Amino acid sequence: MLRLYDYADSGNGYKVRLLLHQLGQPFELIEVDILRGETRSEEFLRMNPNGRVPLLALEDGRYLAESDAILFYLAEGTPLLPDERLERAQVLQWMFFEQYNHEPNIATARFWLRHFDPPDEQRRVLLEQKRAAGHAALSVMEAHLRARPFFVGGRYSIADIALYAYTHVADQGGFHLGGYPALRAWLERVRGQPGHVPMDAPAAP
Amino acid sequence: MLRLYDYADSGNGYKVRLLLHQLGQPFELIEVDILRGETRSEEFLRMNPNGRVPLLALEDGRYLAESDAILFYLAEGTPLLPDERLERAQVLQWMFFEQYNHEPNIATARFWLRHFDPPDEQRRVLLEQKRAAGHAALSVMEAHLRARPFFVGGRYSIADIALYAYTHVADQGGFHLGGYPALRAWLERVRGQPGHVPMDAPAAP
Repeated sequence: MLRLYDYADSGNGYKVRLLLHQLGQPFELIEVDILRGETRSEEFLRMNPNGRVPLLALEDGRYLAESDAILFYLAEGTPLLPDERLERAQVLQWMFFEQYNHEPNIATARFWLRHFDPPDEQRRVLLEQKRAAGHAALSVMEAHLRARPFFVGGRYSIADIALYAYTHVADQGGFHLGGYPALRAWLERVRGQPGHVPMDAPAAP
Repeated sequence: MLRLYDYADSGNGYKVRLLLHQLGQPFELIEVDILRGETRSEEFLRMNPNGRVPLLALEDGRYLAESDAILFYLAEGTPLLPDERLERAQVLQWMFFEQYNHEPNIATARFWLRHFDPPDEQRRVLLEQKRAAGHAALSVMEAHLRARPFFVGGRYSIADIALYAYTHVADQGGFHLGGYPALRAWLERVRGQPGHVPMDAPAAP
């Protein structure tokens, strides 16, 4: 059985859990406490030298890291990853956008507000920058979704899962979505997909 | 013919130019001056609402952004992207590592040192953090390459192209590679690949 090393409050981990649920793919969830440094233990670093969750362990003993690479691996050959060559690359485009423009701003702001509140002076300055950059990312998404139901090819895909994970809890990072009506309608459409589970759903599909 | 919107000093753009050369794929290069804000013009934002280069324009009028998504698109069906499902995902794993752990530290430090030298007080503090995080990324690469000639599957792939782009100019960001012998040997292997061109090569393959 697939094993997923994960931390319950991680949006990156939630992406993988949500997809596994929607694919009906059983998996064993192994909780790793990032706050206690468990991703930096010698044992964990042997599995993922980059010291991060989520981490997928295959049945043949191989490992795969990086949430969006795991999504791509699991979704290949399913309706959640387009067959058409450019659409498949557009899914990746949005996932790289997510990891470069969205996650480092919105997810990091959320993590700091949950664990370092009030922030120290340096984090306070950085939070202002992340606020601006995070809203820029949300605005790019809003404009794209104004004319489209989902990010790629008119259909729900892992691009939507990747972007949903931290967008639907953006308010916990201080990002209010009142000014993003297309984004809010898309969040509802994602929530309405078959097999959708919330972030705190139990592990078994 | 494919059109590539790009900025000559961009490592992200160099990834795409290098791959196009190695695939023998003709392309038209359209220079966009990011320092003059040309990626923020109305005309450019219509092509890429995220306002960044590189941007690939296909012959059918569609566009693809994000350097590593472009690499994946162009390399599909060629020897530079593995056929095996997990290896393909491992290529993506290293490309997401590149965009999350490597580029925001090493490429950004390089850009600041080239354009904002001396850095202001806030950049000076951030440069220290980027120094530490960048060396952490280089150490993960060094450990991985100690036992392997290339990043995935024992063969040169777009994972190597993605990581080569800013690693081979890391010294311009203040990252000295003296302590990374496996990394330096890998840089030489990448340079020795058929069709390799340097960052400042002219556009035509």
